[in-house]
Amino acid sequence: MAKIIISCAVTGSAHVPTMSDALPITPEQIADQSIAAAEAGAAILHLHARMPEDGRPTGDPDVYGRFLPVIRQATDAVVNITTGGAITMTVAERLAAAARFKPELCSLNMGSINFAFFPAARRISSWKHDWEEAYVRNSDDYIFRNTFRDIAYILETLSDAGTRFEHECYDVGHLYNLAHFLDRGLIKPGFFVQMVFGILGGIGADLDNLMFMKQTCDRLFGKDSYQWSVLAAGRHQMPFLTQAALLGGHVRVGLEDSLFIERGVLAASNAQQVEKIRRILAEMGHEPATPAEAREILGLKGGDRVEF
Amino acid sequence: MAKIIISCAVTGSAHVPTMSDALPITPEQIADQSIAAAEAGAAILHLHARMPEDGRPTGDPDVYGRFLPVIRQATDAVVNITTGGAITMTVAERLAAAARFKPELCSLNMGSINFAFFPAARRISSWKHDWEEAYVRNSDDYIFRNTFRDIAYILETLSDAGTRFEHECYDVGHLYNLAHFLDRGLIKPGFFVQMVFGILGGIGADLDNLMFMKQTCDRLFGKDSYQWSVLAAGRHQMPFLTQAALLGGHVRVGLEDSLFIERGVLAASNAQQVEKIRRILAEMGHEPATPAEAREILGLKGGDRVEF
Amino acid sequence: MAKIIISCAVTGSAHVPTMSDALPITPEQIADQSIAAAEAGAAILHLHARMPEDGRPTGDPDVYGRFLPVIRQATDAVVNITTGGAITMTVAERLAAAARFKPELCSLNMGSINFAFFPAARRISSWKHDWEEAYVRNSDDYIFRNTFRDIAYILETLSDAGTRFEHECYDVGHLYNLAHFLDRGLIKPGFFVQMVFGILGGIGADLDNLMFMKQTCDRLFGKDSYQWSVLAAGRHQMPFLTQAALLGGHVRVGLEDSLFIERGVLAASNAQQVEKIRRILAEMGHEPATPAEAREILGLKGGDRVEF
Amino acid sequence: MAKIIISCAVTGSAHVPTMSDALPITPEQIADQSIAAAEAGAAILHLHARMPEDGRPTGDPDVYGRFLPVIRQATDAVVNITTGGAITMTVAERLAAAARFKPELCSLNMGSINFAFFPAARRISSWKHDWEEAYVRNSDDYIFRNTFRDIAYILETLSDAGTRFEHECYDVGHLYNLAHFLDRGLIKPGFFVQMVFGILGGIGADLDNLMFMKQTCDRLFGKDSYQWSVLAAGRHQMPFLTQAALLGGHVRVGLEDSLFIERGVLAASNAQQVEKIRRILAEMGHEPATPAEAREILGLKGGDRVEF
Ligand SMILES: [Zn+2]
Ligand SMILES: [Zn+2]
Ligand SMILES: [Zn+2]
Ligand SMILES: [Zn+2]
Repeated sequence: MAKIIISCAVTGSAHVPTMSDALPITPEQIADQSIAAAEAGAAILHLHARMPEDGRPTGDPDVYGRFLPVIRQATDAVVNITTGGAITMTVAERLAAAARFKPELCSLNMGSINFAFFPAARRISSWKHDWEEAYVRNSDDYIFRNTFRDIAYILETLSDAGTRFEHECYDVGHLYNLAHFLDRGLIKPGFFVQMVFGILGGIGADLDNLMFMKQTCDRLFGKDSYQWSVLAAGRHQMPFLTQAALLGGHVRVGLEDSLFIERGVLAASNAQQVEKIRRILAEMGHEPATPAEAREILGLKGGDRVEF
Repeated sequence: MAKIIISCAVTGSAHVPTMSDALPITPEQIADQSIAAAEAGAAILHLHARMPEDGRPTGDPDVYGRFLPVIRQATDAVVNITTGGAITMTVAERLAAAARFKPELCSLNMGSINFAFFPAARRISSWKHDWEEAYVRNSDDYIFRNTFRDIAYILETLSDAGTRFEHECYDVGHLYNLAHFLDRGLIKPGFFVQMVFGILGGIGADLDNLMFMKQTCDRLFGKDSYQWSVLAAGRHQMPFLTQAALLGGHVRVGLEDSLFIERGVLAASNAQQVEKIRRILAEMGHEPATPAEAREILGLKGGDRVEF
Repeated sequence: MAKIIISCAVTGSAHVPTMSDALPITPEQIADQSIAAAEAGAAILHLHARMPEDGRPTGDPDVYGRFLPVIRQATDAVVNITTGGAITMTVAERLAAAARFKPELCSLNMGSINFAFFPAARRISSWKHDWEEAYVRNSDDYIFRNTFRDIAYILETLSDAGTRFEHECYDVGHLYNLAHFLDRGLIKPGFFVQMVFGILGGIGADLDNLMFMKQTCDRLFGKDSYQWSVLAAGRHQMPFLTQAALLGGHVRVGLEDSLFIERGVLAASNAQQVEKIRRILAEMGHEPATPAEAREILGLKGGDRVEF
Repeated sequence: MAKIIISCAVTGSAHVPTMSDALPITPEQIADQSIAAAEAGAAILHLHARMPEDGRPTGDPDVYGRFLPVIRQATDAVVNITTGGAITMTVAERLAAAARFKPELCSLNMGSINFAFFPAARRISSWKHDWEEAYVRNSDDYIFRNTFRDIAYILETLSDAGTRFEHECYDVGHLYNLAHFLDRGLIKPGFFVQMVFGILGGIGADLDNLMFMKQTCDRLFGKDSYQWSVLAAGRHQMPFLTQAALLGGHVRVGLEDSLFIERGVLAASNAQQVEKIRRILAEMGHEPATPAEAREILGLKGGDRVEF
């Protein structure tokens, strides 16, 4: 059966340190958990950076520079740098690290949506760091900005470096946006769709939606012209990944997407989630793709052509 | 068979005067076309204002004040004032007219999206007014802003006046946003969903999407707890409205949504579109709801309780 | 826009004379109504025979021989002879007329189902003919027989005569049966699917089902490798045909499928239904295909190569 | 999370002894594998009988009488007796064992379809028993007969004994048939739907179909008025069961449905399949229902009220 690519999104920017002690913050933690995730079977590591002292999301390339080479030396996994950044950054700030390090893969969000996680504040009474509470609560007024002009700018800027994209699609309209860029020739067949479920503001975490997103891709793009993967927020992570695999898709785990390993139990690490999805895939007869196989499937430029 | 509510969106803010001579601009034109649409069978008139001198969208309540009373005197139709405004306005500006005139119904957009119409610029070589070209071209960088905080603010501000809402949903996620406000008690059962198809940035104009949006409403809200209507952009208008009616929904026509009456032929007026959908409904055995019936179906406060 | 083929199923075998005085019974009535339907815009006439004296369905080629030449002389419409026959016939009897007259098109049912119309008996207190009541009531024990062996037999027998097929599909599984015969090479791309909705025993008359049948065809066959049409029983006829046309399908009317012209009103003739769907198609910008255009679209052998 | 009922269909009638040495044939084998399956976690045992000497399917109650009491003494699992029998039996023969032993649960097939397995003959060159080859090859001409009259007869006959049903639905139309009997009051809310995928003649084994069958049930019956389970033929077994569990359904394994444990590897026993689905359910956080919990969920009369 076809190999399945496991991506691992190691820390992201929506969760705050208060929510889980396992969330990697410092460059050392990010490197350690990334390497362990790769050893557990993740072929792609999707990375954000955080300020080492308080876990605040940052787009500063210098902070990225403290973990990217460490990861590269220890593992062959594909490094995927976010261009989504965090809700406090401009598009230019979001793009800085990817532009400097020219990775094989970057995330690219295919539309603007409300991206909200304020309801999480209700469950927290004391916060580790002073920035966290306002950061979480103000997400009720946050728009994750990705205009058509922004998307064209990112595509043009990074494509020159041979970087390809994990096209994050948070709703059905984002697939149509992707089709718009296909028509304009800024995206080419063989692209990689990352469907996102369960973010407040995006399409909800009902499996009917996964089925419909997949059917819509087939209708808009044609069955054989794209690769696809699924991530889902929180407790929806494993069920959605399982269904994705049943339908022929790839999967993304990681503490960016869910802090849990099972209902009510925090994950000890990113690697623990990689191991879990790997066991599920094995029961279904699937093997995880190696980094080399992932590069082949996604048509990546190669781990030796990055600048870190 | 159940009565079908025909809404007519008379002028909107996305089309520019260059695109059609029939687009009503001045308060007199807006009033005239609104009254004719009502006479043709529209039970609801969805209204925006434009600067009389050059057709530029405006949120200025004084401009609204020049046509609202005229319309009210001539027709019993329900007046629905936009809170979406135009891409150049802040949320406060968008809300000003509705807050002053306290209509029975306002539009309320249930999420943020890219809202783009820049491809239309390709087909236009000379423009009637100097603001138009930049307005159209820059929509590639435009986000139609409706954060959770904005939506809560509009719901709270206008609900006090007894105004109800045409909840415009541009994608599947917007239905989940609506469900979020239902959970919070800020929206109550009996609400009115307006599904929007074919805006670049929102869900596309394939009928599979209409079916799925309807199925998603039934799944999230329960079949009998909501009313729904459909609008679709441009040439998709009549096919989508026909399918909506087949599925038990209401319909919205008007030059805001489409400037055409059939493939390649500009509509002469809003009323002409009302007449066309009315003929189609009649073939299917449906009668249009009167304004009184629309008030009953949607639970509106009554045309005598507005402030214009 | 693409031309739409209107088929008209003139009399069928499930309705009995008591149900409508307009139902054509004698060869003269069948010929007259067929010719009028063709003049109204039907490009294909789907025909069954009945015993002239009491309207009982018959497969007797001699009875067919009394109306086929009359129709052929008066109109250029494509003649389509049933191989479904009636619930009282063997497969051999069902095939006799088609085998003798070698028409351009035959119906071919793609699976076995319960085919029941016994609930209609509740609404009838006196019957015109003595065979009718038992015929209707006993349909609770009837299976419309079309085994894989039967289907292969019909395909092989009639394909030699250059006859092509209206592949009637009463449920999702029938599309898979069709795919099975495609795999075996007994059916070739360019085939014509007739989706049937609302027969008790087959897939029900909800529009979700039409959408799903269409999506399933695209998934199994590929969007461009087939033509398709819709028929629906009773009051569902016009809504289903309208949605089919919206989705790019062809349509079938006729008293075989529905005796009504609108809710609670019996149709005066087959032609009246043809006129009605034609008006609806015209509002949507569609023109009916001529017989010549239908032959082209379906790849038929030509009206001069039949044996009547 | 909700408990999931694992049914195990121990031998069925479509597979023949040549296909797998693990297929239980004699009363002893059927009893042994049933008991082992129950010990592995199956709450329901769905049973057919076979002639001990050559494995030919039989409806003879005396053969059933040789394993039913053995199973009952050794396990608390719910015994479910087929009324589908085999392709060689009349409806009366199919009903005989259930009528004598009055089990808690019987299968009941909700419509007639072609039920074909002749393609399997291509892979077999020598047969263990002389009846097998014709049995398999002639299934191209077989209709699994379940007319409306048959279904009413079975419902009425067995309901008096307090037996409830596993309503096997092989296509979308079968759900409508079930709705028909609900309307007539012959089936009551709380019923148990067994969806069947991948039988040649029924709905195919694409997961889109499972999603649509579930959505159709919700639409026709209402989300909370029924229990449901899934079985799928051959290699589709585990993927379909996994998706069913993800959607809140129950699952059925067993050598009746699939002879395999993974791609290309024959299962050693029914119990081995029970263990496998149990591991998958555990990864997803689900526990199997005990027989007592299954009785509660399905509203069964109790293991002490059967006549064996
Ligand atoms: Zn990220
Ligand atoms: Zn508007
Ligand atoms: Zn027919
Ligand atoms: Zn069975």
